[in-house]
Amino acid sequence: MEKNNKLAAPSHIQLPPGLRFHPSDEELIVHYLTNNVASIPLPASIIAEIDLYKYNPWDLPKEEWYFFTPRDRKYPNGARPNRAAASGFWKATGTDKPILTSFGTKSIGVKKALVFYEGRPPKGYKTDWIMHEYRLPDTIAWTPNRKGSMRVSSS
Amino acid sequence: MEKNNKLAAPSHIQLPPGLRFHPSDEELIVHYLTNNVASIPLPASIIAEIDLYKYNPWDLPKEEWYFFTPRDRKYPNGARPNRAAASGFWKATGTDKPILTSFGTKSIGVKKALVFYEGRPPKGYKTDWIMHEYRLPDTIAWTPNRKGSMRVSSS
Repeated sequence: MEKNNKLAAPSHIQLPPGLRFHPSDEELIVHYLTNNVASIPLPASIIAEIDLYKYNPWDLPKEEWYFFTPRDRKYPNGARPNRAAASGFWKATGTDKPILTSFGTKSIGVKKALVFYEGRPPKGYKTDWIMHEYRLPDTIAWTPNRKGSMRVSSS
Repeated sequence: MEKNNKLAAPSHIQLPPGLRFHPSDEELIVHYLTNNVASIPLPASIIAEIDLYKYNPWDLPKEEWYFFTPRDRKYPNGARPNRAAASGFWKATGTDKPILTSFGTKSIGVKKALVFYEGRPPKGYKTDWIMHEYRLPDTIAWTPNRKGSMRVSSS
């Protein structure tokens, strides 16, 4: 797939004035990502579905927004994710953070922080763009688990 | 009007998970209060219309919520507001704060902080309940300006 084409930015989902989408990690996993992965209707049409890795972060709408995106693999039979994106790549930073329910210790998802680098690995230079990837736990077997919900922002 | 009756709490307006109503002062005045006073449809049905002075703050739904409410006067021909409420009264604190547009110095509204006292004036004891009253500027002549938009919270 050609990933270096300049694509038009996905259209922005408009909210009425004063309303903001600020889900907790738990709300994002329980009410949005789980439903999306299982093809169950969502409580609100507020998260755009795009292939995020086709874009540079600055081509995405808004300073901070949420997206559903497919997760690609580097090798068909491997577990390593492919994080190349348009004119650069996303690189994980820090450790995976388990998302727990507010009432217990059960892990319902995983949150990972990534930084955008311009250029090609192993080179490339770091930018101020940060993305948080939310995915379901790898132990959930009823889904190929190749979708994530992402929050992109500029620090 | 009998104001000491215990009234049922107004029903809570439910938002989809992750969506919060956090308007700026300007958004509240421009998109909600102005429309409500002029009977123009609102961008979203998110602010309950109640007579807030019939309630004690702890009988209202949620820890923090927005309401449209009529403003009562102490004397029919006077300007002093009547702020008696259920088993107490609201008392202004600090000075009125003009709400300016983000692009200029024009005042589009006034914000006032009030504290709830239990009992009857001049006595009564102070509680932790705070309300912010938003009203249109007194110079806007096309409306009797007897409505306000209120944000109630517990400090």
